[in-house]
Amino acid sequence: MGKVQTLFWRGNKLILLDQTLLPNEISYIECSTEKSVFDAIRTMIVRGAPAIGVAAAYGMVLAANEIDENDFSVFINKYESLGAHLSLSRPTAVNLHWAVNRMINCAKADENIPIKDIRKKLEREAIAIHKEDVQINRTIGENLLSLLKKGDAVLTHCNAGSLATTEYGTALSVFYLAQEKNFSLKAYVDETRPRLQGARLTSFELYNAGVDVTLISDNMAAVLMSKGKIDAVIVGCDRVAANGDTANKIGTFNVSILARYFNIPMYIATPTPTIDFDCPTGESIPIEERSGEEITIVNGVRIAPKGIKTYNPSFDVTPAENITAIVTEKGIAKAPYNDSLKQFKNN
Amino acid sequence: MGKVQTLFWRGNKLILLDQTLLPNEISYIECSTEKSVFDAIRTMIVRGAPAIGVAAAYGMVLAANEIDENDFSVFINKYESLGAHLSLSRPTAVNLHWAVNRMINCAKADENIPIKDIRKKLEREAIAIHKEDVQINRTIGENLLSLLKKGDAVLTHCNAGSLATTEYGTALSVFYLAQEKNFSLKAYVDETRPRLQGARLTSFELYNAGVDVTLISDNMAAVLMSKGKIDAVIVGCDRVAANGDTANKIGTFNVSILARYFNIPMYIATPTPTIDFDCPTGESIPIEERSGEEITIVNGVRIAPKGIKTYNPSFDVTPAENITAIVTEKGIAKAPYNDSLKQFKNN
Repeated sequence: MGKVQTLFWRGNKLILLDQTLLPNEISYIECSTEKSVFDAIRTMIVRGAPAIGVAAAYGMVLAANEIDENDFSVFINKYESLGAHLSLSRPTAVNLHWAVNRMINCAKADENIPIKDIRKKLEREAIAIHKEDVQINRTIGENLLSLLKKGDAVLTHCNAGSLATTEYGTALSVFYLAQEKNFSLKAYVDETRPRLQGARLTSFELYNAGVDVTLISDNMAAVLMSKGKIDAVIVGCDRVAANGDTANKIGTFNVSILARYFNIPMYIATPTPTIDFDCPTGESIPIEERSGEEITIVNGVRIAPKGIKTYNPSFDVTPAENITAIVTEKGIAKAPYNDSLKQFKNN
Repeated sequence: MGKVQTLFWRGNKLILLDQTLLPNEISYIECSTEKSVFDAIRTMIVRGAPAIGVAAAYGMVLAANEIDENDFSVFINKYESLGAHLSLSRPTAVNLHWAVNRMINCAKADENIPIKDIRKKLEREAIAIHKEDVQINRTIGENLLSLLKKGDAVLTHCNAGSLATTEYGTALSVFYLAQEKNFSLKAYVDETRPRLQGARLTSFELYNAGVDVTLISDNMAAVLMSKGKIDAVIVGCDRVAANGDTANKIGTFNVSILARYFNIPMYIATPTPTIDFDCPTGESIPIEERSGEEITIVNGVRIAPKGIKTYNPSFDVTPAENITAIVTEKGIAKAPYNDSLKQFKNN
């Protein structure tokens, strides 16, 4: 396996693989302030909902270290402000808010201990979030594998891999688990325009890990499906609503319609913190629109006329009716999701 | 209108706009041999089924000029060989074969006239094919317009525009006719990976012509459709089978499935020579597979890891069941196409 590490914590700094340079260059940046983590998330140096969550947790350790206060209420006030700022770095990813809130709750849990001990507690909490991410993804992979047959070909979209998390990935965990268990799977990867996470990241990590992987343009999926070459679609997600509607990288909705047309199962792989029970349906999920230059300029090369209008939503919402199952570390949910997802709710 | 000319015939040479350099550079090449036209078609300097047909017709004028023979049967023998060669430049486009055969039939029509007069007759035939193309496309545009309402938004895929033909285009003719008739239409354009004909060519020609045009990545169509922003899909095609199955640029099949899911009409715009009555269904249409580097390298920039496997069919076949109507210069056909297309057959 030639897997590269997405992020790690060393000497009170967060070290991030710069994913914007993949697959041509493997390079890391160091973050020692909340602001630098904010920028790294915003510019997609780190991306993928679970990885953003872990990066944000470490970002909140850095935030605590930046606040030079000994008064608990002043400290918490400033800490909540930095958390609110960090939460704005990507509006769609729910793990970001979840991780920031968990860190804030950890900081607030006991006002009678010294601030320096709160800082240490926060570091332990971030490391715990990181370890949980690895274990969660491994379990998701095992649950996904239970839905497949040996030799199946699986189409995936975007990158819900080890690069999007911190070890196995959500959707891609199934390929790594299959390798461990000699359960040979074939991977087909949508290149995922406009930012090409499938071409740059997913094909990179699966290829390096020795998985049998074939890269296609997003618009080639129907041909493959019509020839019976795809047995299942597995994708990650950025947010699941209480009714099962799922926000994921732009193009997932398209793939779900194709899968439905060809009667191919469509599975969402997700850790339970990505399920937003406060969000009743997909209509309540905010969808980030990004710069049109992501479409008109590829790696610095202009591919469309200057001045052309574009529409560039970064995510879309796959309606629950197109989803065969939502696969989590706590089990597998099927329709009706308003009922089945409730089992995953933390009390 | 800032339309650029796709091809013209001047001084016994075929002048072709080099479409591989668009939208960044407007540059022309000169062809004076059959081989140079073969290369231009193969490398997609000229592309789009109707434009390929007209270029091939002029290529066959050049072929006649190259054969230094006065004996009719030797001349015809060599002429047919060059025609067979030219036909191999792109296997899927039926207009290519149609134009080559029409030129060969013209050459064979009268064996009692001198070869030099046959050469002149062939030049007149190619010019006639060229003029017919302009008129055919204008009529297709009028027929398409009859299916739309003022202010409609139309999604198109690839480039079936003036660049793919010689003046109005097939699918795009509707936008040019709408401009002439103050019938305001909005255009949405799929960028059309891997070769980006939508981004490079369609958005370029519509934008230059002053059409209200918005460019999207191929995988954004479902979101637009779900928001009610698309009233119709109109695409060109490379070959229509007798049952209505239609080969067009890869991704058209995907779009047709989305249109069906959202109950949006899907129209194929095509001149009748593109209907192949010898081809019973889409299964008989040969589909060209092209180099994987079209996916992994964009304008010279590598976007996927070296060595990665790819699948790169250049076309797909949209089944007749997903097509609302086939719109030609001779009228509009609806299902069942095995019956309705027969009205367009030349006797």
